[in-house]
Amino acid sequence: MTKAEQIMFSKWRELCDIATSSHVLSWDQETYMPAKGRHGRGQVLATLAGLRHRLMTDSALSDAISATADSCEKGSELEAQCREARRHVDRASRVSEKLEKQLAEATSAGLSAWQKARAESDFSLFSSELKQIVELRREQAAAINPGAAAYDVLMDEFEPGVTQTELEPVFSELCAELSPLLTAVTDSGFQVDESPVKGDFKESDQREFGLFVARHMGFDFEAGRLDLTTHPFCQSFNNQDVRITWRYMEDDLRSALYGIMHEAGHGLYEQGLPDKWEGTPIGGAVSLGVHESQSRLWENLVGRSESFWEWALPHARKYLPGLSDCSVGEIWSALHTAKPSFVRVEADEATYNLHIAIRFDVERRLFAGELEADELPAAWDDAYEKYLGIRPANASDGVLQDIHWAMGAFGYFPTYSLGNMISCQLFSAAGRELGDLDAQFRVGDFAPLLEWLRTNVHAHASRYNAKELVERATGAALGSADFLSYIKGVTAKAYRLDNIPA
Amino acid sequence: MTKAEQIMFSKWRELCDIATSSHVLSWDQETYMPAKGRHGRGQVLATLAGLRHRLMTDSALSDAISATADSCEKGSELEAQCREARRHVDRASRVSEKLEKQLAEATSAGLSAWQKARAESDFSLFSSELKQIVELRREQAAAINPGAAAYDVLMDEFEPGVTQTELEPVFSELCAELSPLLTAVTDSGFQVDESPVKGDFKESDQREFGLFVARHMGFDFEAGRLDLTTHPFCQSFNNQDVRITWRYMEDDLRSALYGIMHEAGHGLYEQGLPDKWEGTPIGGAVSLGVHESQSRLWENLVGRSESFWEWALPHARKYLPGLSDCSVGEIWSALHTAKPSFVRVEADEATYNLHIAIRFDVERRLFAGELEADELPAAWDDAYEKYLGIRPANASDGVLQDIHWAMGAFGYFPTYSLGNMISCQLFSAAGRELGDLDAQFRVGDFAPLLEWLRTNVHAHASRYNAKELVERATGAALGSADFLSYIKGVTAKAYRLDNIPA
Repeated sequence: MTKAEQIMFSKWRELCDIATSSHVLSWDQETYMPAKGRHGRGQVLATLAGLRHRLMTDSALSDAISATADSCEKGSELEAQCREARRHVDRASRVSEKLEKQLAEATSAGLSAWQKARAESDFSLFSSELKQIVELRREQAAAINPGAAAYDVLMDEFEPGVTQTELEPVFSELCAELSPLLTAVTDSGFQVDESPVKGDFKESDQREFGLFVARHMGFDFEAGRLDLTTHPFCQSFNNQDVRITWRYMEDDLRSALYGIMHEAGHGLYEQGLPDKWEGTPIGGAVSLGVHESQSRLWENLVGRSESFWEWALPHARKYLPGLSDCSVGEIWSALHTAKPSFVRVEADEATYNLHIAIRFDVERRLFAGELEADELPAAWDDAYEKYLGIRPANASDGVLQDIHWAMGAFGYFPTYSLGNMISCQLFSAAGRELGDLDAQFRVGDFAPLLEWLRTNVHAHASRYNAKELVERATGAALGSADFLSYIKGVTAKAYRLDNIPA
Repeated sequence: MTKAEQIMFSKWRELCDIATSSHVLSWDQETYMPAKGRHGRGQVLATLAGLRHRLMTDSALSDAISATADSCEKGSELEAQCREARRHVDRASRVSEKLEKQLAEATSAGLSAWQKARAESDFSLFSSELKQIVELRREQAAAINPGAAAYDVLMDEFEPGVTQTELEPVFSELCAELSPLLTAVTDSGFQVDESPVKGDFKESDQREFGLFVARHMGFDFEAGRLDLTTHPFCQSFNNQDVRITWRYMEDDLRSALYGIMHEAGHGLYEQGLPDKWEGTPIGGAVSLGVHESQSRLWENLVGRSESFWEWALPHARKYLPGLSDCSVGEIWSALHTAKPSFVRVEADEATYNLHIAIRFDVERRLFAGELEADELPAAWDDAYEKYLGIRPANASDGVLQDIHWAMGAFGYFPTYSLGNMISCQLFSAAGRELGDLDAQFRVGDFAPLLEWLRTNVHAHASRYNAKELVERATGAALGSADFLSYIKGVTAKAYRLDNIPA
């Protein structure tokens, strides 16, 4: 190892350890921290963030990356290390301390204002704070990469390398195919009976059943744990310590079960990251889209499948005495509704990506300068009418529903849809290679699927970017075909549609 | 505020925040961390320690402290800030990085060797590691303060300002008075009946009862929490977030109840530290001895008193259905045994300080060069014979029983006895000022006592050193008189001694 490599890797190790410290503090904040701890915790997290920024923008690190990059082999692992290190360092060092501080203050004010505005369903209480956040994010994007479109720069934080030019046709195709599907569903007049997933389920029973399923998925509880929280998340400290969280509804098993399967899917990715790159620039998950593909794959493609329920139902009956006397088919149908709704987090699989398409459309125009912050409510409502055929009755269930913008997280939403598409593309490829996945699920055998994901996704960490990774794993460029074919199939079956709309 | 003060305080704030991060990581490690997380956690904690050391030894900090100290008023609060800052900075910066690293490695090896040696009751498996630790600690003490006795320098880490010259007469007096007391107990032939505290107690019942008592002590559970662990401790992140931990035995209520009261006593101190000094050099607890005085005061002087039980017994019956049909007097007696034993952590109040006197004697001689590491087993056994009249049958229950030396923590033990003595001295002073404490305890009113501790101890944080603090609070120099008078009184009563030995 050259001196420059030594410097790069040792400094990166330190950066990772500081990030991990922040993650432990954040996890604790969302799980066990007592109410009055909030103020002090914010202070400590800010100090750690400042420290990390200081170390990340240390010129010795930048020099070491440059020296390493200059001498490394084209296409090598080391080149990938330099690529990722450079990306992070540039994002951190091109933004002035003053702008960083302004952004921190603006999002802090934004979060408070958003909470109040949402509670009172009054966008005007949030509009000046949002305007300020948008302006600062535009300024930040220009500072990071003045030659690129602002929205591309923002998306790059969450999904490195993706551009709106690439995404526009993908979302167009999604909308073009999903709209007639939803029309066909509405026209059918058929109502899916959701009662099979309703009942009276005790917290401890739902927890035990969730643990049982997660364990069968392959989540290692000696290298992770499950805890209650308000807004479930997965937080990894390293591949030997991955924390997943859950919440539950007493009268509906979906919230707990699919929440746990979703987070355990994220968790399996984190547990599967290779030891050899731990604490290095390419050691982490490659993108939010790929991360989301792992959670959605387990939640939707495994967890909502008929074969999964053939295995799971007898166990569910044991764990959840409140479960009704339903068949696998009945429970399957209950899990495949397709109804336009206002709120993204409550949307079903068939409409979810339209909620994202709306946000992609609005955000893209906002950062192209075609739209200003105060025009967002109207643009939002119009888009819901256009894409989903419904118009929000109030701002709480409309433009104010998501926390993302208040946090400054513009460009984040598209990763959800990318996750859905990638999950289907990976799942199809796994099926082609592993044979009859349903036969495996029917006997509770998820090991071959996990092994395939380990080899084709997890083991690569950030060695390749998301696009390359998907191509290597599936043999095809990222696209919406597998998702569309899947969603049309299940929706047609659940709603007894004779013809699947083209 | 001068520029120098600004630098000193802002850098100290950062140091405190890094320390707090380590504390959160340590708390998590001892409560919720999954088994496989250990390795990665050690790495992150080491990085944080290194970072803290780097910032602590930054010459800009040292210069700022010097400049502030040069211009501040004698006896002022600012002078105290400089005194504490200087003490920490000097301890950190006078020890070379090489020696720090050697110590970290030696104690890491020491801990493994000690665990093995203790399990096999074979000192020889630990002797070379211990020898190494002792040598490095001698070297470290010489580096920190070459003009002082090594043992004083070591004790100063835990109990700033205390010296063996001061402690020797205190321990001599303790031993001189406790030995005849124990002889009188043995000669009486009386056996205290411990059955009242035995029974069959469910974990959840013991937890609820412990929470009930801690809440009545005044512990704020919105600014703290109670969690299970293996070796109970109190870990504070700031005065709004104080974590206490507990363990339990199913057949003996003492482990849980007194463990919780002990840790809640520590926790009340932490919750009582003043906001105004948070994150400054004098913002923390002043010493381990004073910290221990708070835990022991609540555990022993409150929790084992007759008046406490007059209030607590009816509640205990409600929470712990397994409690026998005993009287307050019977339960009180069961809590006041006085029997020589081998193991410090199982010792009763009457013999506990003799266990400490033994360790003080042996450690003092070790760092005076009167004893070498390989002579410790014999010195230990001889001291047990001399002080307690019993000779350990094996090393596990003898010289290998404590983890402290394997961690390098020489000079720590005396703080336990200081805690006992200070607790009695404070309790006597509080009684003089507050009138009949027993009458208050009998109705479950612990607020006046807590308020007195808040005002006389907690509110001062590290503004004064421990000796000054005790004198200001009690009007007298630290001594053993109050402890001796207390322990003789309760022991004579429990063992029906007609004459308390002089």
